[in-house]
Amino acid sequence: MRIRFYNARILTMVDLTAPSIFTGEVWTEDEKILYCGPEDKAPQATGEETAIDCGGNLLMPGFKNAHTHSAMTFLRSNADDMPLGEWLNQQVFPFEAKLTAEDIGTLSKLAILEYLTSGITAVMEMYLTPPSIAEAFRSCGMRLVQVGGVNNFSQSPELLEEWYNELNGKDPLTSFELGFHAEYTCSEELIEKIAALARKYEAPVFVHVSETENEVQECIGRYGKTPVAFLADKGIFDFGGAGYHLVHTTEEDWQILKEKKIGVVTNPASNTKLASGIAPLADYLRLGIPVAIGTDGPASNNCLDMFREMFLATGLGKLREKDASAIPAYDVLKMATVNGAHIMQQPETDSLAAGKLADMIMIDLQQPNMQPLNNIANNLVYSGSKLNVLMTMVHGRILYERLDGIQRFHVGEEPADIYKDCARIRDRILGA
Amino acid sequence: MRIRFYNARILTMVDLTAPSIFTGEVWTEDEKILYCGPEDKAPQATGEETAIDCGGNLLMPGFKNAHTHSAMTFLRSNADDMPLGEWLNQQVFPFEAKLTAEDIGTLSKLAILEYLTSGITAVMEMYLTPPSIAEAFRSCGMRLVQVGGVNNFSQSPELLEEWYNELNGKDPLTSFELGFHAEYTCSEELIEKIAALARKYEAPVFVHVSETENEVQECIGRYGKTPVAFLADKGIFDFGGAGYHLVHTTEEDWQILKEKKIGVVTNPASNTKLASGIAPLADYLRLGIPVAIGTDGPASNNCLDMFREMFLATGLGKLREKDASAIPAYDVLKMATVNGAHIMQQPETDSLAAGKLADMIMIDLQQPNMQPLNNIANNLVYSGSKLNVLMTMVHGRILYERLDGIQRFHVGEEPADIYKDCARIRDRILGA
Repeated sequence: MRIRFYNARILTMVDLTAPSIFTGEVWTEDEKILYCGPEDKAPQATGEETAIDCGGNLLMPGFKNAHTHSAMTFLRSNADDMPLGEWLNQQVFPFEAKLTAEDIGTLSKLAILEYLTSGITAVMEMYLTPPSIAEAFRSCGMRLVQVGGVNNFSQSPELLEEWYNELNGKDPLTSFELGFHAEYTCSEELIEKIAALARKYEAPVFVHVSETENEVQECIGRYGKTPVAFLADKGIFDFGGAGYHLVHTTEEDWQILKEKKIGVVTNPASNTKLASGIAPLADYLRLGIPVAIGTDGPASNNCLDMFREMFLATGLGKLREKDASAIPAYDVLKMATVNGAHIMQQPETDSLAAGKLADMIMIDLQQPNMQPLNNIANNLVYSGSKLNVLMTMVHGRILYERLDGIQRFHVGEEPADIYKDCARIRDRILGA
Repeated sequence: MRIRFYNARILTMVDLTAPSIFTGEVWTEDEKILYCGPEDKAPQATGEETAIDCGGNLLMPGFKNAHTHSAMTFLRSNADDMPLGEWLNQQVFPFEAKLTAEDIGTLSKLAILEYLTSGITAVMEMYLTPPSIAEAFRSCGMRLVQVGGVNNFSQSPELLEEWYNELNGKDPLTSFELGFHAEYTCSEELIEKIAALARKYEAPVFVHVSETENEVQECIGRYGKTPVAFLADKGIFDFGGAGYHLVHTTEEDWQILKEKKIGVVTNPASNTKLASGIAPLADYLRLGIPVAIGTDGPASNNCLDMFREMFLATGLGKLREKDASAIPAYDVLKMATVNGAHIMQQPETDSLAAGKLADMIMIDLQQPNMQPLNNIANNLVYSGSKLNVLMTMVHGRILYERLDGIQRFHVGEEPADIYKDCARIRDRILGA
């Protein structure tokens, strides 16, 4: 199936030095981009392709949400304004223990609906039951990269290896990477077993690292090293990977990140709401350490909105540096698109170009928050909102659109039914 | 004209201790609320009133944007990622000098469109040409409280007094309060003249105070006092009023704010983007100092979105206090509604109750970011977005709605025409 998007402004994200936006067409054929360029060089329209008039609005690569726990939707707004420890131990762990694999699939679908409203076309997920999560994403048509969440209490290196072999190569939308929860929830022996898997498969590893000051101090107390140094010394990142959060890091940590080519996935809204701190993104950028952006889970954020994250990534960076020129907007756009795709091992979704996968969004420039069109890239980062998302296409399929004003999801189920299912699960677990 | 809103969840904001949300009806008659309560005590529907099925969605008071410079829309995204001084002196002042009064009215209308998409029903404005701004708001049907922006270079105490007398009492939507730009842009003599006007009219005064560390240090250098102490000693706040920003304040300042009943209008997105710092909101709350929220102008924010501001008000407070329990969500909702109305001298718009003015919004609870309905008040603060605003009513008139999915503004002009006018002004001033 061919779709011709015409009369569009196009931000390809191919040029990494500065945003170049031109007027033209994007053609998709099945899951791929067939053409992306000016109108006069576009394929000849035959009338057999579906034609979508973009009305001068913007096409760009979808946002990549590089860290989340989707199914935690059931806890959204259930326990806000609490200290982190109390929240985890009293409001999260006891309720998570009651979740079934099927619950987790259903709750993930609620998150998928919200991702789509925010122009997110792929997520990197860590949660309890990877097979049911993969099934939920597959059935919605949404792109998913899962990572293991091994810790002392759930999952195991054996299960991780099993999933790594079974959950890859099954379909073009979902994949699975090695991962574990965090240094502070895993024994040294467990971490060594995961490092052994990384060596065996020459594979990257993904893990929460240095989210809180307390976590760092405890690791230093245990091992005499920061979490970054400890995990790197264990060989966890010998084949790359990324750390989620990396809020509390030292200059020595930065050198390790740089040398081992470890990615940083920053989660600014979650770090803000949980009072964890502000990550040193300006330093990471200065050193050329790749940074991507995640929403973290809906229980700690509480929303799944890449526009909020983008504003915070630069805004908090400016506050930390006491410098309004820190972390320019286009660097943030790269984090939310290109860098996310690369850190998530999905380079074929990083930009709009012929041959790339058709993970693309349309942004409404005719909303008042985008006017006047002084600088579209900056508008996206500083002013963008879910109200600007007119379409979200994943793997060549339009999963969400408001092209004629009416909001429609094309994920195989009606949102109202997903809401009902989630409310039932919520009532069973939290009490009606 | 009567409108009956039925099948609604209702958050009145009358109860200041905790959110009480009930199912019922709101009836408006012309500019006022006729009834707000349960269905079984509502007036008898006669079929002559307009009936709107809220579908279980939420009615609540509109958000009050307590500090902005609306017409700065023309500079949106034109000069981001710059140090504050450079931004003001190279990118703001030279261009503002070219604006006509008519330009400012037109550019204000673009901001009004955006306010409406964010559920904002009233703004407190400080800008260059109050008469043309009042005319723009009046023509759109939007509620406006203006304050003078006197400084050494523009406006004057005489003009301020003239506007105070001429721009009040003309219509029910627009009013004018005493105000000046800031300590650092006004001579001591000028400030004394404004204090004299406050005494003469026994009126509150509104002014930028202690936005940056530098401003505070310079004031201490000039007068041996912080801006708060200096202005209070001059009698500026003898009849109340509020300070915009109040980021860099001392414990002595807090006591002055408390004793003189001076309101704080916090502008967290602007303070973030310009790297000004984080206001001590938790201390203000602890001391009972009233806090309201403003977006500041679109050149320094860059968007006009009360949802972003609400998340930042609590989030930045949590970061500053290193305490995830700081500044609970309902306190933020009060800031954005009740406190804003009171600081803006518009108590008749503070809540939903019979006899109050009908400044009301409808929030879509059937968006994925609001599900499940664990805690609607928290959902608004932590998850809300412009995509959730289904209707914005000001003074009993629906100025904006997406009730059937299609976005419609009812402000007397089409958005596309306002965009065109603003683009023309932008091109003339900034160069095409």
